[in-house]
Amino acid sequence: MIDEKYTGADKLLVNAVEGIKRTGIQVVALRDRYAKMLMPLEGNVNHVGMMYAGSLFTLGEISGGAIHVVSFDMTKLYPLVKEINIRFRRPAMTDVTVEVELSAEQASRIQAEALEKGKADYAFDLDLEDASGEAVAIVHGTWQLRTMAERMGASVPKR
Amino acid sequence: MIDEKYTGADKLLVNAVEGIKRTGIQVVALRDRYAKMLMPLEGNVNHVGMMYAGSLFTLGEISGGAIHVVSFDMTKLYPLVKEINIRFRRPAMTDVTVEVELSAEQASRIQAEALEKGKADYAFDLDLEDASGEAVAIVHGTWQLRTMAERMGASVPKR
Repeated sequence: MIDEKYTGADKLLVNAVEGIKRTGIQVVALRDRYAKMLMPLEGNVNHVGMMYAGSLFTLGEISGGAIHVVSFDMTKLYPLVKEINIRFRRPAMTDVTVEVELSAEQASRIQAEALEKGKADYAFDLDLEDASGEAVAIVHGTWQLRTMAERMGASVPKR
Repeated sequence: MIDEKYTGADKLLVNAVEGIKRTGIQVVALRDRYAKMLMPLEGNVNHVGMMYAGSLFTLGEISGGAIHVVSFDMTKLYPLVKEINIRFRRPAMTDVTVEVELSAEQASRIQAEALEKGKADYAFDLDLEDASGEAVAIVHGTWQLRTMAERMGASVPKR
């Protein structure tokens, strides 16, 4: 469920990027430092009836943005994805979900580092799970938190 | 350009999976053991105007299927993606292309191993390049070639 303070953020995460919106992905839970997303099988099957690899990638990749919204000061900081590794373990034959979470200590430490240095990396190991709770894919992703000043200062942001 | 013997294969690669088709990706060249694809910026921008990470992933991931079509015996073998790593180097502000190629020796060796053992892995390091030839993202992908018999024998194909 979407905590009241994040009403609208769920829609923003899904609608801001056309390539994400057209998958039909849903944000099913947002609360402080926690997010859960669901990729529907419908509209995301491949030529042999399992979930398309790219839709699983989108589910993993959105996690870095979703945790940003519920963990960091969005008036001062924005996220970039640096690198994603995705290992496909089993065919995904149902809707697939992912959960991502930071502790208060982790969020504070990452944000403090970004505010001090202009940027800070954060990484997650994520299980993408089918309806039976089986991990169909494993994602290791690294994102970078940047200060707005860092963005304004660079003509072309480098990762 | 599409070699005459692969007419139709370019459309099949793009149209067989809805999640690929809706990106507007194009197969621009197919010949024996060589493929080139283009992801248009239009329809694939993110909330800050650069190409969406997931569309870059799709461009890398389709390479394994494209090289399959122009390198292996499609009546006996099919491909699965096992693992993809994508590192985002610079913002992609133009259309992005990828080229993938196998030598005759590589293709023969991989196919012979798959026919003998029922499966064989193949991997590529791919540069995803913008219009100026700059690598905006680097993909390392591993796919697996499987015999049809292997598919028929398994109730649920495991990767």
